[in-house]
Amino acid sequence: MSASTVATDRPVCAPLDVLGRDVLVPLVTGGEVDYAALDYAASAPALQRVWDDVAAYAPYYGSVHRGAGYLSQLSTDLFENARTTITRFLGCRDDDQVIFTRSTTDSLNLLAAALPHSTQVFVFETEHHASLLPWEQRDDVDVTYLDAPRTSRQAVDILEKALAAREPSPSSPLRSSRGGSIGPALVCVTGASNVTGEIWPVKELAAVAHAHGARIVLDAAQLAPHHPVDLAELDVDWAAFSGHKLYAPFGSGVLAGRADWLREADPYLAGGGASRTVARRPDGGVDVAWHTTAARHEAGSPNVIGAYAIASACQALTDAGFDALVAREQELIARVRTGLAEVPEVRILSLFGDDAPRVGVLSFVVDGWNSSHFAAALSAEYGIGVRDGLFCAHPLVRTLLGGAPDAPAECGAPEAAPGERALNAVRVSFGAGTPDEHVDRFVRAVKELVADGARWSYRTEDGRCVPYTA
Amino acid sequence: MSASTVATDRPVCAPLDVLGRDVLVPLVTGGEVDYAALDYAASAPALQRVWDDVAAYAPYYGSVHRGAGYLSQLSTDLFENARTTITRFLGCRDDDQVIFTRSTTDSLNLLAAALPHSTQVFVFETEHHASLLPWEQRDDVDVTYLDAPRTSRQAVDILEKALAAREPSPSSPLRSSRGGSIGPALVCVTGASNVTGEIWPVKELAAVAHAHGARIVLDAAQLAPHHPVDLAELDVDWAAFSGHKLYAPFGSGVLAGRADWLREADPYLAGGGASRTVARRPDGGVDVAWHTTAARHEAGSPNVIGAYAIASACQALTDAGFDALVAREQELIARVRTGLAEVPEVRILSLFGDDAPRVGVLSFVVDGWNSSHFAAALSAEYGIGVRDGLFCAHPLVRTLLGGAPDAPAECGAPEAAPGERALNAVRVSFGAGTPDEHVDRFVRAVKELVADGARWSYRTEDGRCVPYTA
Repeated sequence: MSASTVATDRPVCAPLDVLGRDVLVPLVTGGEVDYAALDYAASAPALQRVWDDVAAYAPYYGSVHRGAGYLSQLSTDLFENARTTITRFLGCRDDDQVIFTRSTTDSLNLLAAALPHSTQVFVFETEHHASLLPWEQRDDVDVTYLDAPRTSRQAVDILEKALAAREPSPSSPLRSSRGGSIGPALVCVTGASNVTGEIWPVKELAAVAHAHGARIVLDAAQLAPHHPVDLAELDVDWAAFSGHKLYAPFGSGVLAGRADWLREADPYLAGGGASRTVARRPDGGVDVAWHTTAARHEAGSPNVIGAYAIASACQALTDAGFDALVAREQELIARVRTGLAEVPEVRILSLFGDDAPRVGVLSFVVDGWNSSHFAAALSAEYGIGVRDGLFCAHPLVRTLLGGAPDAPAECGAPEAAPGERALNAVRVSFGAGTPDEHVDRFVRAVKELVADGARWSYRTEDGRCVPYTA
Repeated sequence: MSASTVATDRPVCAPLDVLGRDVLVPLVTGGEVDYAALDYAASAPALQRVWDDVAAYAPYYGSVHRGAGYLSQLSTDLFENARTTITRFLGCRDDDQVIFTRSTTDSLNLLAAALPHSTQVFVFETEHHASLLPWEQRDDVDVTYLDAPRTSRQAVDILEKALAAREPSPSSPLRSSRGGSIGPALVCVTGASNVTGEIWPVKELAAVAHAHGARIVLDAAQLAPHHPVDLAELDVDWAAFSGHKLYAPFGSGVLAGRADWLREADPYLAGGGASRTVARRPDGGVDVAWHTTAARHEAGSPNVIGAYAIASACQALTDAGFDALVAREQELIARVRTGLAEVPEVRILSLFGDDAPRVGVLSFVVDGWNSSHFAAALSAEYGIGVRDGLFCAHPLVRTLLGGAPDAPAECGAPEAAPGERALNAVRVSFGAGTPDEHVDRFVRAVKELVADGARWSYRTEDGRCVPYTA
């Protein structure tokens, strides 16, 4: 993934139909307006096609893998075909496994649990919590947090330097240059930031990781819904993403990649489906033989509808022409950025600068505004749904805001009264279902709020900003 | 839960509407028939009301907890109201937490991960793998497997004896009668067996557990869909169940109960939502403060639709009148048992005998038949979906079949040619959506197959028995 992979000279398609496109919400200023869902980075609406597929399948739902009935066999085929569709969507290699999880967070916790003993993990402090925090859950895993890079090139250099410090000597591939032996290593990197939307140099980072004997996992939560992800082409060892950000909000996610570490690890959950045979021993204990396929980490009845929904979404993106969707999203990004550039009070948060390739995710602060109040006004006065806070990426947002990255902050809670220095940000995000009007309304709303102020007063209630009511 | 809690003199209601009630499936004998879903113990069909609720909500889906938009706030309310509905459905106490998981398996793995250091776990060998296997995933937990009881009373006695062996001496509540100190203990017991459908003496076991300073978790996967479960009345510390067995197959499950151990445990998954604050330390590491509410164990974006679907199902069962549903199910059980009693070749598997209270789950073997072939014939010739195998409860089924419980067996794979001794069983299961006709068709099919044999030949393909085709 490099700058050249996001071109803007490709044919543009219409927005895809999504659920909720006709939902009306009330405005505090009176009347109703159709809801502008601009929080895709948290949860995207379901594609209409995904919903239609789920609705068509639901009456045929049955238990998978071990039922003898017709619907069980149909459901088993559908479930395993979903796996195959996702395998193809991600460009998996022959020896890769696709494991159904509940989310990206779950996928990365699974991989963390499956790391070989004493793995060294390298992760940028700029990751969101799902990719930042799972690794230290393992007592035997050593985590190196890498400082925030300020260019794409610097990211590669920082990783290179950190990995070189564990370089094996020429005489022994199993010993480091400092004399000690080296064990397995993993680099975890986001594909596109959930705060800035900037695309990270995944392919270059993968090359560096592999040159130093490390493996790499791609957090594709924000990339896969917006951009093709091909494991073989990027040469990443694993990728993780969530259904609810990829237009399939039915409780499933995916971890895809190398089978070997997963096969050798303890099962993620202990239970039926993962166990091949279970028997009591003469000494009173219990012997278990576990599966070595994806089933090893999928104990319990699988979420068949969730898996099918993800496959449906993957197929819908493919069928729509992912290039055309990317081209359309780049147009929306340009509209937003051009519009916000006309408002000097708005500061867009960025690690890599204006020229970085990006997806439809953008965070900003507004001079003189508390971000929570700004987001509340967008909702109450314009029917626009965005997000405010630190976006479960506290160290990154702190760095971007210019505050001390070690200052703790409640996730999402407003922290300063209006007019004080911004301690959190507003995030706008969009994708395949977003019509031009939503983006245009957002730009207009920002301009009006900055010029005229909010027409209502806001207060905090249960951690949310809401308008004062009589 | 004791025999007296299942009475049959209450008013009977009609079956509840479920999805799939009009689905036609082909028969190898020609023509089509409406599918008889008799594998509720694996996965029940969605209630029509659950589907309608999900369909009505889906356009309003939005990210929960931290979004500023109208649909995010609506979805947050809906998600937390779902928690409240389930709290009420389960008769939770004030200090209980309801945590959304993906399934019973996941719930019990979460509880296993949350056990205090060096907890002693007591579990009957008769549990299914979801409640049998999670505990030994913890290296510091000692698991005692209790032998299969043959009466409900014996179950209580066996537990009493096992717990007494760790009794603290009168002089020190922290030391055992053998002189060593004793730590926390947990008993895990199923509410209703997924093999025999027999209801376990949960209340009596809870009393024994508490008398000996142990806690108890109820695996309600097979009980909650069929019978009211009240944590306070049963005096169990936790209960776990799955949406997909409770007419809400959207990928969610529940762990409900005592907050203290859960609050003190490491978060189940590390990631956003569970983390309250995250900050880099001056030494380069990362400090995390975790939530102490249910959010602690719900990292990542929650499965809002899955949670809402479970709450909808709980409310539907309550609104239908759970007593009337129980009474109806008891009638169906009586029809099946009376019908099968007329077939001497059929042997029903039972731990506790004919008089045991039970839910609509029943396993059997047929003299002279391989169970997989029998189940395949029920599907192919009658459109009846049941299950065959060892039902992810290998030691129990081995014991019930009279084979050595330590003989390993592939889960669900047929192991003997027709005519050999049964090495696995057939399971029929039903519930709130089952019409009389399905049960009557099943009894007729069993009688005809036993009397006349299968009209088609069967072979094994991908672990399934299927009819030979040209």
